[in-house]
Amino acid sequence: MKTAIDLNCDMGESFGAWSMGADAAVLEYVSSANIACGFHAGDPVIMRRTVTAAFERAVAVGAHPALQDLHGFGRRAMVVAPDEAYALVLYQVGALSGFCRALGGHLSHVKPHGALYNMAAKDAVLADAIARAVWDFDPRLVLFGLAGSELVRAGRKVGLTTANEVFADRTYQADGTLTPRSRPGAMIRDLSAALAQVERMMRHGSVLALDGTEVAIDPDTVCIHGDEPDAAQFARELRALLMQLGVAVRAPAAQR
Amino acid sequence: MKTAIDLNCDMGESFGAWSMGADAAVLEYVSSANIACGFHAGDPVIMRRTVTAAFERAVAVGAHPALQDLHGFGRRAMVVAPDEAYALVLYQVGALSGFCRALGGHLSHVKPHGALYNMAAKDAVLADAIARAVWDFDPRLVLFGLAGSELVRAGRKVGLTTANEVFADRTYQADGTLTPRSRPGAMIRDLSAALAQVERMMRHGSVLALDGTEVAIDPDTVCIHGDEPDAAQFARELRALLMQLGVAVRAPAAQR
Amino acid sequence: MKTAIDLNCDMGESFGAWSMGADAAVLEYVSSANIACGFHAGDPVIMRRTVTAAFERAVAVGAHPALQDLHGFGRRAMVVAPDEAYALVLYQVGALSGFCRALGGHLSHVKPHGALYNMAAKDAVLADAIARAVWDFDPRLVLFGLAGSELVRAGRKVGLTTANEVFADRTYQADGTLTPRSRPGAMIRDLSAALAQVERMMRHGSVLALDGTEVAIDPDTVCIHGDEPDAAQFARELRALLMQLGVAVRAPAAQR
Amino acid sequence: MKTAIDLNCDMGESFGAWSMGADAAVLEYVSSANIACGFHAGDPVIMRRTVTAAFERAVAVGAHPALQDLHGFGRRAMVVAPDEAYALVLYQVGALSGFCRALGGHLSHVKPHGALYNMAAKDAVLADAIARAVWDFDPRLVLFGLAGSELVRAGRKVGLTTANEVFADRTYQADGTLTPRSRPGAMIRDLSAALAQVERMMRHGSVLALDGTEVAIDPDTVCIHGDEPDAAQFARELRALLMQLGVAVRAPAAQR
Repeated sequence: MKTAIDLNCDMGESFGAWSMGADAAVLEYVSSANIACGFHAGDPVIMRRTVTAAFERAVAVGAHPALQDLHGFGRRAMVVAPDEAYALVLYQVGALSGFCRALGGHLSHVKPHGALYNMAAKDAVLADAIARAVWDFDPRLVLFGLAGSELVRAGRKVGLTTANEVFADRTYQADGTLTPRSRPGAMIRDLSAALAQVERMMRHGSVLALDGTEVAIDPDTVCIHGDEPDAAQFARELRALLMQLGVAVRAPAAQR
Repeated sequence: MKTAIDLNCDMGESFGAWSMGADAAVLEYVSSANIACGFHAGDPVIMRRTVTAAFERAVAVGAHPALQDLHGFGRRAMVVAPDEAYALVLYQVGALSGFCRALGGHLSHVKPHGALYNMAAKDAVLADAIARAVWDFDPRLVLFGLAGSELVRAGRKVGLTTANEVFADRTYQADGTLTPRSRPGAMIRDLSAALAQVERMMRHGSVLALDGTEVAIDPDTVCIHGDEPDAAQFARELRALLMQLGVAVRAPAAQR
Repeated sequence: MKTAIDLNCDMGESFGAWSMGADAAVLEYVSSANIACGFHAGDPVIMRRTVTAAFERAVAVGAHPALQDLHGFGRRAMVVAPDEAYALVLYQVGALSGFCRALGGHLSHVKPHGALYNMAAKDAVLADAIARAVWDFDPRLVLFGLAGSELVRAGRKVGLTTANEVFADRTYQADGTLTPRSRPGAMIRDLSAALAQVERMMRHGSVLALDGTEVAIDPDTVCIHGDEPDAAQFARELRALLMQLGVAVRAPAAQR
Repeated sequence: MKTAIDLNCDMGESFGAWSMGADAAVLEYVSSANIACGFHAGDPVIMRRTVTAAFERAVAVGAHPALQDLHGFGRRAMVVAPDEAYALVLYQVGALSGFCRALGGHLSHVKPHGALYNMAAKDAVLADAIARAVWDFDPRLVLFGLAGSELVRAGRKVGLTTANEVFADRTYQADGTLTPRSRPGAMIRDLSAALAQVERMMRHGSVLALDGTEVAIDPDTVCIHGDEPDAAQFARELRALLMQLGVAVRAPAAQR
């Protein structure tokens, strides 16, 4: 049985006049908040407000940098050179860090968003560029990436503490990767099945793949999808389950 | 006679595929570079490149935050609430600071751009918001503002080191303010007249207003307009004049 | 008693991943839809979808052009030159008209949005630029503006059919202008009071100003605020009242 | 020998305060201008100015729609759904058409830009979506695409007049496709070699591939790269060559 785990959720994804997510409700249950930095969502006023809210609840603050694609919410894969990826991650991490600093706190982690996260899971060169940007900004930051991905590997290589991210509401394949959303059975819609998947990860360090294979997985952080309508409820139930199992919920230990 | 003065120039104002300014040439002569932060010009790749170039020449790096108006190059006055101004300055200062940090250097100063600079010169509430953002990010930063403006006053009030900015190529009025660009005689097109105006400021701490009045002025930094075609030449001649006068050219002493 | 009136509502103000408004519900009750054109809200996919929905319900489609300010939802006053205003209105009207044309329909009217609407109500030069852009694109378009505003005057001057817009949920002053939102009593929160104000306009061609004065007003179109949570309910009740009064609800007669 | 050919050039690719291209000079020699529509470059003021300049010289005006990527100048490949491509082409074509209409002229053609052009050359589904958007807006428009591409095929299928575009300064491969820019020998830097390639196309309806193979090609329009420093000179020399050969330079005959 694992003794501790992190719960993370994307936050601050409103923009100007538009609202998204139930940040305040979700903040009650998570230990890490990944805050949008203005490239796919968020704006300076929203970033400041969201960092403030996270600090008030002692939730660890992370930057959630994305491709420059407000219109596509950072979800559209785009050709981006490594130097460009390095610079856009550094820009966004710096911007969010400024709010942390002005509020008397500090940035804890970085989790790329959407297409950047997915591309960096598979593309080693892109992953290296992102990991270097994080390291060059602050070697004490924790880099979040898909469990077993190129991004996690790149983070370790450069010397960062990394966090393997797992999903409660996504199914896995026999090779340990996520079932693509385009395939049937990719999503776990049933709450108790999602909770059971996390319980197995905690108890046995494994996940049952779609084909029934038991695959080893070593989770550091579980993603709560903040844009789902029942995000807060799911987070609450997951937190209750973990308490029952005796698993502490806390942000990854940064090297501070 | 003043013994030292700063020469500053706006830089990094290219954007994506578009070029602006002769940054490399101007960097040879100035002591402070105000680098665009992506809101009116600049982008992450250009910011990194410009900070690198400034550090290589030991030129002090400043953030040049602006209103969010790429299309209008940050020159269009816009209604902006103090909280919004605070947040957008903090965002941009943080973003630029990230590049300084990753490159092993530090941010030295902040100079608002265009409409934000002009609005903050007259609007005490806006000026206070900007000064607070700079202070909250790092109290050691120097705040550049129009000599005698509300922004300089706000910076001092909050505890920041401030730099009174003067212009070689703009005429002044009897009350010490700049002649608005819309009025005849606002610009000094003649190079030797511009140099003479700086010389008088250095020697006598004064400027001759358009109506002939001698007005006291205490300059800390002289602005080189980087978007003028002959910016580098002007900077070179100004630097030569200052050397002749025995005036050292150096960035304002930050409280480090 | 007036025999006919138009009910209009701003629509298509979602953007990318963000939703706003209850367009489908409101479309059941209005006769004119003012559709965002991508500068303050809306995007090509949303514009197409919204035009399609309006045509399906035989609701007249109008362009709702705005200042280029996605972040501020087009609500921030901004300095904009007349030539720039002309061009940005023409651009947005052309863009929306393309969707009408591709769907086999036509554009009926233009109503500027937010800060552009407010600025054009008072600034004759800006109003003229907007009216010319509309006329130059298509002289048969109806120009919507605040009743008695410079924009309506400019539209008439250039030869356009204009529509005086009135508000059910805003109070008026003795000079016929709206009470500024910053003043107490600006909004009419009570549904029956809002309905009564429209009824008086229909029956007597007048409105009771805040100070009790009866002011003449000649409404062509009543604005439904689509971003209010109860927009659809208000539209339904207003429509029922008008039916009761024997007032037909229809879009202004364009010169086709 | 072909008796007529079109010369086209991308134009209006400045943006706000930034300049690009020598539009006025190039307009003297081309017969078709592809004008940026604000998504990768251009803005309403620049669009109006560029359409005006083209009409003054009787140059046919085309829309040059792009992916929504100002920062990447529309050159970064991006995942875009067919419905999205349809809508963004329609939006931009409508916007540019508005300026043509207001200026008393009409839009003649559409040529997608950068990554959209390249993606539509190979992706039949994307090509169909673009061709449908053009057709739905106005069936009389000419669709420009890479000679032999999916885009040209899609245009013909939907019923549009199409124009096969060829390049003077790019080499071809034995299968008739362009040599990718990433490979050596992709560009023809020598002016006389570029002119010779066009001459062969005119005289023999063929091009010599990099490996020496003679490949049949049937050009309707030759692209002048307006962002090259010597674009105007190249256009002048090409025009002189065509005059010498007795080949008329004119825009593709639209079905008007």
